[in-house]
Amino acid sequence: MTQATQMQSVPVLSQEDVVQKLRAAVHQAAAQQYFAMYSSILGGIVTDPALMIVPFDDHMVHRGHAVFDTAAIVNGMMYQLESHLDRFERSASMARIPLPFPRGQLREIILETAGASGKRDAAVRYWASVGPGGFGLAPNECVGSSFHVMIYAGANTPASAYNEGLKFITSSIPIKPPYFARCKSTNYLPNAMVVMEAKDKGADNGIFIDAHGMIGESSNMNVAFVTRDRVLRHPTFDAILAGCTVTRMLELAKTLVEKGQLKDIVVADVPIEEARQAAEMLLIGSSVHVAPITQWDGQPVGDGKPGPIAKALLELIEKDMREGRDQLIPISYR
Amino acid sequence: MTQATQMQSVPVLSQEDVVQKLRAAVHQAAAQQYFAMYSSILGGIVTDPALMIVPFDDHMVHRGHAVFDTAAIVNGMMYQLESHLDRFERSASMARIPLPFPRGQLREIILETAGASGKRDAAVRYWASVGPGGFGLAPNECVGSSFHVMIYAGANTPASAYNEGLKFITSSIPIKPPYFARCKSTNYLPNAMVVMEAKDKGADNGIFIDAHGMIGESSNMNVAFVTRDRVLRHPTFDAILAGCTVTRMLELAKTLVEKGQLKDIVVADVPIEEARQAAEMLLIGSSVHVAPITQWDGQPVGDGKPGPIAKALLELIEKDMREGRDQLIPISYR
Repeated sequence: MTQATQMQSVPVLSQEDVVQKLRAAVHQAAAQQYFAMYSSILGGIVTDPALMIVPFDDHMVHRGHAVFDTAAIVNGMMYQLESHLDRFERSASMARIPLPFPRGQLREIILETAGASGKRDAAVRYWASVGPGGFGLAPNECVGSSFHVMIYAGANTPASAYNEGLKFITSSIPIKPPYFARCKSTNYLPNAMVVMEAKDKGADNGIFIDAHGMIGESSNMNVAFVTRDRVLRHPTFDAILAGCTVTRMLELAKTLVEKGQLKDIVVADVPIEEARQAAEMLLIGSSVHVAPITQWDGQPVGDGKPGPIAKALLELIEKDMREGRDQLIPISYR
Repeated sequence: MTQATQMQSVPVLSQEDVVQKLRAAVHQAAAQQYFAMYSSILGGIVTDPALMIVPFDDHMVHRGHAVFDTAAIVNGMMYQLESHLDRFERSASMARIPLPFPRGQLREIILETAGASGKRDAAVRYWASVGPGGFGLAPNECVGSSFHVMIYAGANTPASAYNEGLKFITSSIPIKPPYFARCKSTNYLPNAMVVMEAKDKGADNGIFIDAHGMIGESSNMNVAFVTRDRVLRHPTFDAILAGCTVTRMLELAKTLVEKGQLKDIVVADVPIEEARQAAEMLLIGSSVHVAPITQWDGQPVGDGKPGPIAKALLELIEKDMREGRDQLIPISYR
């Protein structure tokens, strides 16, 4: 029988202690970058970072039984909320999470939380979980789905990413099975480990390769290629997440075909060997928009410099964020 | 431009509102079954279920960057904490989570939280996360790892599970890649979906099959087989989690070989076709201990009745939980 060592006692906390500790735990990023959070469990919006909390027994906390999606506040407008909400509904259905509110109410809560943040440019993220109810595995014990919205300062991509390009590696982290890769759940440990591995190797990020040696996706963004004969190549979405930004970009890129800057746009499996011959390599996501990848596994991509297609696509996306009228919803600030 | 619909405004909450809402959100299970929680973020133990909360920006909440493990309070003693802590350390290392305290302190906090619960029989679970710090993907933004311990009423396995046996299905949910299956992270969406699929089909639980058609594991427990010539067969632990209970059971089962009740114990790949010929099928886990599976995909296992080896192994485990002196640590109740 092992004898427990005698150490200093762990204190038992009162409600006042807990509130005080939550306040003391507000770190610099929380104080400066968390603007507003909605919680269906609390039944409202909090703007005090100390109160941005969730019950520990919510299955999103301890089982990862939750899905999420994003959007962006650009110039006081919500960009691309509808396509993100489409995907959010698909993810929830795949993860068997009943959404706690109809879509109109989800949209309204997101917009009101954005309004309460007072910010005219910010990142938006929202989560649906099977909710609190216990520490079991199946959600039949849960009292009801929960919904959370966070309005915060998104990471700024440094200008060097666009001017000099990004460094990437081929990740050794195994890709998720296709079903789970297509569902935007909070099971993002593999995704986090892709970034960690890349940083270890002095790179910015990495790429998941699928079981058949095909290009997958980056940690939480998509990758595309421009061939030497100016074809824009993107992997199919059978085994990766269907990015909302890349889906929009593939649509906008058609104007580059019309102008003759691109010869064609092809969405099909991209074997890694073929990808290595590309003239340009692109990173696409809701935060980075479109950035050139100029080094991959220590080798230059094309001539090792940001290419014209990356630049043209970035301009198209940024124009869309300002002027894409069917992509924008006005926010009512309080 | 889509116009936002006009709906009732979402309230903005004060600190008093939040505390009151947390208290109102305490459901029956929380009130009756959550005994004590330690939080490194709060710096102590809470016994009030309304205060069992975690900051939303902890990466365990929104990225699943956390690992966990279990133990059990049996008769006022902590059972098998050391082997679970061994695995906890392995999981944390695989998920690249620096543990916030040395092992002796983790052990002491778990034992003190158990002591504060006042319970002489309860379930124990603890989590290590990369911690709070933001909504990015990589943990470099985190202010430091967090550690949580929960003492709660574990689910009671009904007597019918032992007397009549369990019904299982072969799950269609894809198994995790081996690296992630071996790491006990909170990325348990696939695991939860295995149980959900089984319940849909009127079964108790399901079995993950690996990419090569070999038996994997159940949702969060292990499965083993007894062949018609009395060999205890268990899959290797290359592509599944190394269960602490099954590891102990495989050790204890040696006495059944000595007594001649079993001919041999073999840990090796178990092809699904071979498994279907078994005389007995066993479910093994820290909560269920050992229970017979008597129906699999609608077909009886062996003669369709609980077998003698399941019963003998259950007795060995339960004896070990009461008397296995090197497996037990006394709890100091406050």
